Amino acid sequence: MNFEHHIQSIEKSLANWEIPQESKNLVEPIRYLLSLGGKRIRPVLTLLGHELFNGNPEQVISQALAVEVFHNFSLMHDDIMDNAPLRRGKQTVHEKWNVNAAVLSGDGMMILSYDLLLKNQEDKFVELFRCFNQTAWEVCVGQQMDMDFEKREDVSLDEYLEMIRLKTAVLLGCALRLGAIAANASKEDQEHLRLFGEHLGLSFQLRDDYLDAYGDPEKFGKQVGGDIISDKKTYLYLHTANHEDESIPAELKSLHGNSDDPNAKITSTLHLFSKSKADAMTLAKSEAFYESALDHLNAISVSDDKKMALRNLASFLLERES
Amino acid sequence: MNFEHHIQSIEKSLANWEIPQESKNLVEPIRYLLSLGGKRIRPVLTLLGHELFNGNPEQVISQALAVEVFHNFSLMHDDIMDNAPLRRGKQTVHEKWNVNAAVLSGDGMMILSYDLLLKNQEDKFVELFRCFNQTAWEVCVGQQMDMDFEKREDVSLDEYLEMIRLKTAVLLGCALRLGAIAANASKEDQEHLRLFGEHLGLSFQLRDDYLDAYGDPEKFGKQVGGDIISDKKTYLYLHTANHEDESIPAELKSLHGNSDDPNAKITSTLHLFSKSKADAMTLAKSEAFYESALDHLNAISVSDDKKMALRNLASFLLERES
Repeated sequence: MNFEHHIQSIEKSLANWEIPQESKNLVEPIRYLLSLGGKRIRPVLTLLGHELFNGNPEQVISQALAVEVFHNFSLMHDDIMDNAPLRRGKQTVHEKWNVNAAVLSGDGMMILSYDLLLKNQEDKFVELFRCFNQTAWEVCVGQQMDMDFEKREDVSLDEYLEMIRLKTAVLLGCALRLGAIAANASKEDQEHLRLFGEHLGLSFQLRDDYLDAYGDPEKFGKQVGGDIISDKKTYLYLHTANHEDESIPAELKSLHGNSDDPNAKITSTLHLFSKSKADAMTLAKSEAFYESALDHLNAISVSDDKKMALRNLASFLLERES
Repeated sequence: MNFEHHIQSIEKSLANWEIPQESKNLVEPIRYLLSLGGKRIRPVLTLLGHELFNGNPEQVISQALAVEVFHNFSLMHDDIMDNAPLRRGKQTVHEKWNVNAAVLSGDGMMILSYDLLLKNQEDKFVELFRCFNQTAWEVCVGQQMDMDFEKREDVSLDEYLEMIRLKTAVLLGCALRLGAIAANASKEDQEHLRLFGEHLGLSFQLRDDYLDAYGDPEKFGKQVGGDIISDKKTYLYLHTANHEDESIPAELKSLHGNSDDPNAKITSTLHLFSKSKADAMTLAKSEAFYESALDHLNAISVSDDKKMALRNLASFLLERES
């Protein structure tokens, strides 16, 4: 991919990042979580968003790290809330240390992400900060909605889309926009770029919902059917649960909570998903957001060749051939 | 007191504070914790720090709230870590809701405190932010040290002073300095004002350690002897534990963990405190910080009559006659 050099630059900067070292026990969980890797999509977006408007990526490497560190802070705290034992195949912080360590190191991580946001960008800081802080709040609201949905049986598809927009997609939009702000892009271009990222995030999340149920176990990184087994209210599930033919939602709910025979549960649920056309609808919705994302990218007032890197990233994220 | 009108102004602003209302479940714990009251010392300090340099307190009311909201965020998360059932005599957030609510609403609270810090002060924001964010990190380091100390038997008095400086005192210094920054005070005056707050905080905390053991149960808000029963490593304890006559530390440690007869434990511990002169030393140390705080206040380049409100606040905090 033509953004491999950006990933290397991010990894190098993360490794060289000097965290105030007053407190070994506060900093170790931060270093640990960041060392577990990940695709570093968000910081790459900041660098690409900056390059799109002829910015030099070195000038926003710290802002790119701010987004990655914030993202990892949210993972550290989400893993507490989800009681998750593993993150990227390794122990979560609250498992390896304890809940207190994950709470406090997460807090520290959020604070450090703001420091990174300021570095080398004092002149633009108010604008960068407004974008970053609003997004930070939205990510919290998204996580709250996700937790609320677990206890609700009447979640609509629109509410679900709003939840994944806030929990996942807005940070992609913010990452891009930070790069654009630092490169003096117009408000209109900033907004198109932000929506490119947000809609790409929505498209990605819906495709992830689809692949969790229908993906190739060889290619999909997680256990196929995992969402079904854990009764997760995905787009597939909610489409089926809100189906007008009432026998379908009734049958779906009868499988809910059932854990005697996971394979039978997966098979029966997939049958209901197909019967309600949830599979096709989920893919179509993902595709629609993908197209909308590209429309926003196309609308940005820079020459088309400069958009190639972001188009490639979009294809890469959605695992497309072109 | 001559800062009663400031407290009223803070209470009014807190009540009128518009939190983005996308998420009822995220915001309710925030409103709840803030409604439990408290002395609102920190926001008053911001207003007084601003007035000292002829600033109009209305201009920094939002920064004053930022400090109070940040302080309450740290309480919400500290209460999780300390497994505390009560805060200001009412249920803590993690008790009234659950740990997840306290984690996420705390995160949201921290994010909102940054929003408050920006409001009406865009021109000064970088400077305000640097002060606020460095303090935020220090408060986390202080909390980490406090947790680390629970598992250590070799804590020195200097380490203890550094812990309470970070965990408690720096935020008082920051609160004052924010007011001074917004009023265009010189760097030198900012620094004296910050140290006035920090040393006042240290003096207060040491006096609190003393009163927990020797206070009048009628006047002291908490259970007298509470620190002794819970084996807390206060200044009194550490002074005694580090005493050169080795029989004293040995006897103190033999009482550690003992919970059969709380009253006997308190009596025996107080006897050891007195024997090692920990009581007098703690009061003397508190007094020294108080004097140093006043020295820093005196050194500020504004006329003496303008300093009266801060002197009164210092007396009030340390419950002095003059």
